[in-house]
Amino acid sequence: MSSSLGERLKVTLFGQSHGTAIGCVVEGLPPGEAIDTEALDAFLARRAPGRSALSTSRREGDVPEFVSGLVDGVTCGAPLCAVIRNSDTRSADYEQLRRLMRPSHADYPAHLRYGGHQDVRGGGHFSGRLTAPLCVAGGIVKQILARRGIHVGAQLQAAGSVEGARFDPVNLTAEDLARPLANALPTLDPETARAMADEIEAARSVQDSVGGLIECAAIGLPAGLGDPLFGGLDSRLAAALYGIPAVRGVEFGAGFAAAALRGSRHNDPYCLEGDRVCTATNHHGGILGGITTGMPLILRVAIKPTPSIARPQQTVDIARMAPATLSVTGRHDPCIAPRAVPCIEAAVALILLDVILIMKGSL
Amino acid sequence: MSSSLGERLKVTLFGQSHGTAIGCVVEGLPPGEAIDTEALDAFLARRAPGRSALSTSRREGDVPEFVSGLVDGVTCGAPLCAVIRNSDTRSADYEQLRRLMRPSHADYPAHLRYGGHQDVRGGGHFSGRLTAPLCVAGGIVKQILARRGIHVGAQLQAAGSVEGARFDPVNLTAEDLARPLANALPTLDPETARAMADEIEAARSVQDSVGGLIECAAIGLPAGLGDPLFGGLDSRLAAALYGIPAVRGVEFGAGFAAAALRGSRHNDPYCLEGDRVCTATNHHGGILGGITTGMPLILRVAIKPTPSIARPQQTVDIARMAPATLSVTGRHDPCIAPRAVPCIEAAVALILLDVILIMKGSL
Amino acid sequence: MSSSLGERLKVTLFGQSHGTAIGCVVEGLPPGEAIDTEALDAFLARRAPGRSALSTSRREGDVPEFVSGLVDGVTCGAPLCAVIRNSDTRSADYEQLRRLMRPSHADYPAHLRYGGHQDVRGGGHFSGRLTAPLCVAGGIVKQILARRGIHVGAQLQAAGSVEGARFDPVNLTAEDLARPLANALPTLDPETARAMADEIEAARSVQDSVGGLIECAAIGLPAGLGDPLFGGLDSRLAAALYGIPAVRGVEFGAGFAAAALRGSRHNDPYCLEGDRVCTATNHHGGILGGITTGMPLILRVAIKPTPSIARPQQTVDIARMAPATLSVTGRHDPCIAPRAVPCIEAAVALILLDVILIMKGSL
Amino acid sequence: MSSSLGERLKVTLFGQSHGTAIGCVVEGLPPGEAIDTEALDAFLARRAPGRSALSTSRREGDVPEFVSGLVDGVTCGAPLCAVIRNSDTRSADYEQLRRLMRPSHADYPAHLRYGGHQDVRGGGHFSGRLTAPLCVAGGIVKQILARRGIHVGAQLQAAGSVEGARFDPVNLTAEDLARPLANALPTLDPETARAMADEIEAARSVQDSVGGLIECAAIGLPAGLGDPLFGGLDSRLAAALYGIPAVRGVEFGAGFAAAALRGSRHNDPYCLEGDRVCTATNHHGGILGGITTGMPLILRVAIKPTPSIARPQQTVDIARMAPATLSVTGRHDPCIAPRAVPCIEAAVALILLDVILIMKGSL
Repeated sequence: MSSSLGERLKVTLFGQSHGTAIGCVVEGLPPGEAIDTEALDAFLARRAPGRSALSTSRREGDVPEFVSGLVDGVTCGAPLCAVIRNSDTRSADYEQLRRLMRPSHADYPAHLRYGGHQDVRGGGHFSGRLTAPLCVAGGIVKQILARRGIHVGAQLQAAGSVEGARFDPVNLTAEDLARPLANALPTLDPETARAMADEIEAARSVQDSVGGLIECAAIGLPAGLGDPLFGGLDSRLAAALYGIPAVRGVEFGAGFAAAALRGSRHNDPYCLEGDRVCTATNHHGGILGGITTGMPLILRVAIKPTPSIARPQQTVDIARMAPATLSVTGRHDPCIAPRAVPCIEAAVALILLDVILIMKGSL
Repeated sequence: MSSSLGERLKVTLFGQSHGTAIGCVVEGLPPGEAIDTEALDAFLARRAPGRSALSTSRREGDVPEFVSGLVDGVTCGAPLCAVIRNSDTRSADYEQLRRLMRPSHADYPAHLRYGGHQDVRGGGHFSGRLTAPLCVAGGIVKQILARRGIHVGAQLQAAGSVEGARFDPVNLTAEDLARPLANALPTLDPETARAMADEIEAARSVQDSVGGLIECAAIGLPAGLGDPLFGGLDSRLAAALYGIPAVRGVEFGAGFAAAALRGSRHNDPYCLEGDRVCTATNHHGGILGGITTGMPLILRVAIKPTPSIARPQQTVDIARMAPATLSVTGRHDPCIAPRAVPCIEAAVALILLDVILIMKGSL
Repeated sequence: MSSSLGERLKVTLFGQSHGTAIGCVVEGLPPGEAIDTEALDAFLARRAPGRSALSTSRREGDVPEFVSGLVDGVTCGAPLCAVIRNSDTRSADYEQLRRLMRPSHADYPAHLRYGGHQDVRGGGHFSGRLTAPLCVAGGIVKQILARRGIHVGAQLQAAGSVEGARFDPVNLTAEDLARPLANALPTLDPETARAMADEIEAARSVQDSVGGLIECAAIGLPAGLGDPLFGGLDSRLAAALYGIPAVRGVEFGAGFAAAALRGSRHNDPYCLEGDRVCTATNHHGGILGGITTGMPLILRVAIKPTPSIARPQQTVDIARMAPATLSVTGRHDPCIAPRAVPCIEAAVALILLDVILIMKGSL
Repeated sequence: MSSSLGERLKVTLFGQSHGTAIGCVVEGLPPGEAIDTEALDAFLARRAPGRSALSTSRREGDVPEFVSGLVDGVTCGAPLCAVIRNSDTRSADYEQLRRLMRPSHADYPAHLRYGGHQDVRGGGHFSGRLTAPLCVAGGIVKQILARRGIHVGAQLQAAGSVEGARFDPVNLTAEDLARPLANALPTLDPETARAMADEIEAARSVQDSVGGLIECAAIGLPAGLGDPLFGGLDSRLAAALYGIPAVRGVEFGAGFAAAALRGSRHNDPYCLEGDRVCTATNHHGGILGGITTGMPLILRVAIKPTPSIARPQQTVDIARMAPATLSVTGRHDPCIAPRAVPCIEAAVALILLDVILIMKGSL
C-alpha cells in the first residue's frame, strides 16, 4: 500500500519484477470507449527496453492480456484488468542483493518496511518494471482524452549536462507534442537527440549513468478544473509523478526559476483571443490556485541517474552488519530518463481524466 | 473541496480571507497531548504579517480559539477545532477585483470553477491567509513530534537572486534546525538575512516583488516509513506542499540537480555508524522508493514572487470582456517566502505524523 | 477519526457534548445556493430537545453561527463552517461517570480507545448532541435537493411495541413525506402518535426507556445513481446511518422480511408508465445492484432504547476494578427515536447529494 | 467504481461473470504470512456451486492463480493478485437479456449507469460470481486472523420460513463457529439443515426461490477497535456487507428487535471475569459507539430470494419500450443464502483486519 492512484479513475498496480506477472486494474474508465491496441502497443514500445544500444538489452515482450473490463474491445464500465506475464528474468543476477543493499535503490528501506519478506528479485514491487502496467492504463486513457481534443505529450528535455529546447508554453499544438516521437531520443530536435546519445554513451562507457529532465505538457484542458488547497491539480499531479521510480523533483510552469524572478516579470497578463481569456505568457504552467486556466499545462520532472552501475560501490552487508563492496551486474539503462518519458505522460493522463471525472462525472 | 489533508491525521481548513472567521478541524490527534500555547503563539508569530518593514502592514492578531478537541488544554481524541476571527479587513480595497482578474492569482480560474459565486474579497478561500489555521494545526503537531525526538525545521534558502547556505544533509541537529529563528529573516546566517532584506527592499521600492526558495528538513524519523509507489512519503509531502499558495516546485534531496549528475556521484554509499546503517552522503534526501531511510529528510520548495504588485498590469475585465489595466492596491508582502517558511514546516509536520499514525497506529 | 462523511460533499463534525462548541465543516456544497435560515431553524427544531413532555427538559438553544462558506447568505463554494456554542451544561451530573461505565454507552470502549483522555462529560464526542451539526449540514442539503425536486422525509414508524403505517413505496409524493410534521410525534397519523406517546410515557413513568423504528424515503432521485459492489448507494447510506448514535439496524425495501419471502413474491415486475420504466411493487426499495432504479428510495433504521435510565444498574468501577451500581441521573429522553427522525433525513440527504456530485460533478 | 473495499487492507475486485477471468488485488496484506492453500480451497468450496442438489449445477472449478504478492507461498508485502479463469459459461442462455430486464436484478440500473455498454452476460460485473475472488481475499485474511486468535464464522440462521438457533452471543468459542461446517447446510444443527433443505426444495419444485438470514460472529477481537461516528466498525462492516449482491439488511446485536425492547432489558450490564471487563448479556453485539468492547461481534444479514426464477415474469423490453414476458432460464440456486455464508465471513474478516491495521499499523 498504496499501489493505487486516483479517485474516480483508480489505477492499482500489482506485481514484482521477477514474479509471475505484473499488471493493473483500472476502475472508472468511461464505458463505450474502444481501445486502439495498435496505438497502445506503439505507446508501450516507447517505454520498452531494448529499443536502442543505449537501453538495457533485456527483452520483455510486454504484451498485456486484458482479462476484464472489455466487451469486444470496448470498455464496459467494469474494472479493466491487464496482466503482463514476466519472462526472461535472470534472477541469479540478483542473489547477492538479499544481503548487500544497493545504494540509492529501495532495497534497504523496503527491507525495514517489510521485515525482510519483500521480494528482492529485481527490486520486486519497487522495480521500474511496474511502470509497464502504468503505461497500459495511461496509454488507454491518452486515447480517450485525445478523442475529446485533450492531448498529452512529453519530451526528454535534458540528459546529464545536455539541455534541449522546451515546448512553447503559449502556442502549443498536438503536432508539437508529437515531435519527439520522430527522433532517436524523444527530444524536440534531432541534434539534441544526438548530443544526448553521446552524453549517455560517455557515461555507459565508464560504467556510469546519468539523469535527465522530462518536460510534459497537455493542451485542450477545460479551464476551471481542480479543487482548492490540497485538492489542486498540481497536488494531484505531483503525488502521481512521485510514484514513478527515480523522480526527484516536480515543478509547474516557471517552477524553481520563479524563485529568482520578479513579480512584474513572472506575472502572466490576461488578454483576449477573440472571446477567449488567455494569458500572454505562461509562467503559471496552466494552473493557478490548483485550478486550470485553460492555458497549456506545463510541468517538468527531474529523473535521477540510474542507481544500478557496474562500478564497485561501498555498501553494508545487513546480514553480517559489516561494510561490503558491491558491483551491480545485470542489464541496466545508463539513463532511464528516455524510457520514463511515456511513463510521465501516462501518469499525467490518468490524473487529468480522474479530475475531469471528479468534476464532471463523465467526459 | 478538497480543503482536507491527510488520512489518519486529517486537517480540514475553512474560511475566506475577509469572511467571519478562518480555522481548521484536526481529526486524529493522539490523545493525551498537552498543547504549549506559548510555543504555539511563537510559531504562529513567524507566519504573521507585520513583523518587519518588509512585510505587509496589515495586522491580523490571529489568536485561535479552540472550541473542541481539548480537555484542560490536553488533546482528548475528539476533533480539534480552532477558530480565528477575521478583523481589520478593508474589503473596499478589493471591490474592482470582481471584474478585473488579477494576473497570476486564482481569481480567474476560481471564477470559472464556482460560477462567479466565489468570495472575491481578498482572494476568499484561496488567500494565503488560510495558512494561518494550517500553522495552528502544524504547530501543534510539531510539538507532538518534538516530544518523540522528531524535529522539523525550515529556512529561507534563497530570496530573489540571493542564495544562502543549505542545511548539512548528513549531520543535522535540532540546534541547526533552530538557527534560522535567530535571524531577522529565517536564514542560516545573519549576513544572508541582510542581503536578502536588501534584495526584497529593492523590489519593493520599485513596486515589485520577488520569489524565494525554502529548504525544509526533518530529523529523528524512523526508517521504514512510507508506502510504495503512489503512497510514498514523497508523494504525500508533495501533494501537501502544493496545497500551499505560491508553491511552484518541490524537490527532494539533490532534486533537479540530480538530472545533471552521474550515478557514481549521486549514489549514496551505505556505511555503518555503530550498529546503525547510514549513508555517507544524502543526495536521496532521506527517502528511497517512497520510504524513509533514517537519514535526514531534505526537501526544497520554490515560492513564486508575490503576484500582487502595485504597478499597472494588463488584464481583462470579464464583465465587459474587454482589455483593462489593473493596479493592485492594498497591503502586500514584496516577498511572501519568509512568511511561508513556517507554513512549509507545518505541512511537513502534518504529513509526517500522518504517516507515522498510518503505519504504527499511534506514536 | 473518522468524524467525516462523504467524498465530494464532505461533512466533518467536531465538538464534545459539554465542551465550548460543536459544529460542522461542509466541503463541496454547490456554489450559488441560498440558505433559507427560517426553514433550517424549523428543521433543527425537530431534533431539538424540550419540544414536548416526552423529551429531555434540557434546553439547548442550538443556533448555528456560520463563520465561513457564505457570501450574503449564499454558498460560495468554500467550506461552510457552522459553530454551535454549548450552554446549559450541568457537568456535575456526570462526575461519577469517569469511573462507572454506563451500560450500553460508548464510555468503556472510548476509555480504551483514547487511553482515558476522552472527554467523559455528557458522552463527549460520542454524544447524540453531535447530531445537531449533522442536522445543520443535512438541513441545508435538503433545501438544495428540494430545489431539484428531490425530497427526503422520514417518520417514526414504531416506538416500542406500537407500530404505525409505512410510506406507500410506489406512489409517494412530497406531501406524503411531509405528513409526519403535522403530528405531535412524527408519524403518518395522529392516532399512532398518541399511542406512541402513551408507550413512551409508560416507560418513562417506571424510569425506563424504549426504542423505535424510523422509516425514511426519498423521491425524485434520478435512476442510474451509484457504483457497483462496495460503492453502492446502499453501502454509502448504511455507513452514514450507522454513524448516528443508537442505530442498530439498517434495511432497504423489504429488508429483513425479504428473507422469508419467495422470489415470485419479492421480485418487482417492470412496467411502463408512459415512457418511464417503473416497477409495479417496490420490495427493492429503489436500489438494485447498488444503483438507483428511479423508484422511491425506502429504508428503515432500528434505534435502540435510550441507554441512560434512572434505575440502578450493575456496572464496573474501572478505577477500582470492582463491581458497582450506577443510577444515571441527568435529563434524558425516554425514547430518542422521535428526535432521531430528522437526523436520519439529514444523513440520507447528505449521501444523496454526495452521490449526485460524484456521478454528475454538479447538480 | 467502486469495486474496492478497505483502507489499509484494500481489496479490488475485477471481472465479469462470462468474461475471460475474474479476480482480486489485495493491497496491504501483512508480509511474512504463509498461505495454507488447502484450507483456502476448502473455504472456497463452501461458496462454490454444485455442492448439493440444492445448488446450481453449473461447475466453475474456481482455482485462483496467484500472479503476484507471494514469494514461495508467503506474502511479501506487494499487492497480491489472484486470477480465476472463467470456463463453462453458456452465454447463449443470456442473449435475450440485453433487451428484457430481469426483475430485481441489476440489469436495468446498470443499463442506465453504463449507457448500454455494460457486459450483460450473466450479470457481468454485478454477478454473484464476483464473490469468488472476494472469498479468495477473505479466506486468506481469515487464516491470518486465526493465527492471532481472531476467529470469524457464520451460519445460515434462516431460510425462507425456517429459523434455526443463534450463536451464543456471550460465551462463544472457535468450535461453536465451526459447527455449521459439519452440516449439509451451514446451520448450527442437522435438524435445521434438513428442514431448510426441504423448504428450499419446496420452492425449487415450483420454479421459485427463497431468501435467508445469515448470522456472523467474530471472537478474539481486541477491545477499543474502531473510530467514532462514521468511522465506526459497524459503519465499515455494513458498507462492506451491502457490497455483496442480494444483501437487503444488516443489523448488529439485538438489531431490529432492539426497537421493541425497553432500556432496562436491552442494556448490557458490565461485570468482571477475573480482571477482564465483560458484559453479562450482549445485545450490543460487541460494538458500542462504533468501537469494539471485547465481547463477541454479532451481526445478521438478510439475503433476498434469488431473483432468477424460471416462472414467466412481467417485464419491459427496453429496445421496443413495450411490456414483455420473461422466463429466466439457465442454472440458478433456488436459495443463494447457503453459498453467501462464506462471503459474509470473507467481508467481515477483511474489514476486521483492515481496522486492526488502521489502528495498530500491523498485527
